[in-house]
Amino acid sequence: MKLRETTIATEKIYEGQIITVRKDTVALPNGGKSLREIVEHPGGVAVVAIDENEMVYMVRQYRHAFGDVVMEIPAGKLDDGEEPNDCCVRELAEETGLSAGRYDYLGKFMLSPGFCKEWIHIYLARDLSIGKAHLDPDEFLEVIKVPLSQLVAMIMDNKLQDAKTVMGILKAWVMIREEK
Amino acid sequence: MKLRETTIATEKIYEGQIITVRKDTVALPNGGKSLREIVEHPGGVAVVAIDENEMVYMVRQYRHAFGDVVMEIPAGKLDDGEEPNDCCVRELAEETGLSAGRYDYLGKFMLSPGFCKEWIHIYLARDLSIGKAHLDPDEFLEVIKVPLSQLVAMIMDNKLQDAKTVMGILKAWVMIREEK
Repeated sequence: MKLRETTIATEKIYEGQIITVRKDTVALPNGGKSLREIVEHPGGVAVVAIDENEMVYMVRQYRHAFGDVVMEIPAGKLDDGEEPNDCCVRELAEETGLSAGRYDYLGKFMLSPGFCKEWIHIYLARDLSIGKAHLDPDEFLEVIKVPLSQLVAMIMDNKLQDAKTVMGILKAWVMIREEK
Repeated sequence: MKLRETTIATEKIYEGQIITVRKDTVALPNGGKSLREIVEHPGGVAVVAIDENEMVYMVRQYRHAFGDVVMEIPAGKLDDGEEPNDCCVRELAEETGLSAGRYDYLGKFMLSPGFCKEWIHIYLARDLSIGKAHLDPDEFLEVIKVPLSQLVAMIMDNKLQDAKTVMGILKAWVMIREEK
């Protein structure tokens, strides 16, 4: 079955600090036409950082899009040309002060493929050492430690709502159980 | 710890067919200022539809944002004023022809809270009956059935990359195992 679309025309709508918005006219598989609004984002990295007692470092921060404080795993945007591995080490240190002796890759994910070109890479970080956090000037967050089992229970109770957090915690939990 | 930001000014950048983009100036908890680019999206619904043999109905479709065909659980946008429950029934029927005798709510999730106001509601659909699909005029997709256990293995192998699909499949898998 033919599924692919091809771009006939593209119009740049907005080039901002973080996102770029464009509107493409595409040819559909049946020869028809349609418009596709696309948001481009540099992508980012998120980290499930877990200590030897299966406590996970979580961050609570205000998310202006939702007007609320959200509990998430530490995460941040890729800098220009930055490798995901390097971004992971940098963001974990900036937000929590932690460094890790061991990283496992939990995969890369598209968050909203219907309109948004944004990949997020998720890592599991273990063998943790504690240093000092150093946040960006416009970043305010609170670091808390929560048992992995409690986070899984919160997910099953619909009490954790951030996608990267849900994916990272559930994948980490399955992986750690399979290792035992 | 003070985490909240308050909006000082807002500027509409783009009002499109599906997304709206605005740029807000916010007051930070320390009294400083920052810009927040926000994309608003109507939100949507996704469905893990699973038959009595633990086969899951998946859709393969072209995603223009990534220029690739992606395997996902059936999903779609909320119409104006539509309830998530109704959207779930409608989208499952449109994309796969299925109707379900039983729905369980798997939660609502924020996909990219750093800049995007979009909720996705995920359901588990069981006791399935098969009818005829009826797609939107600009929608082309292929429906396939994949064993739940194989989808979980693909997620652990980093071979499924769509966030709603990863969250829905893992939550459904844990829930079904807990019921047994």
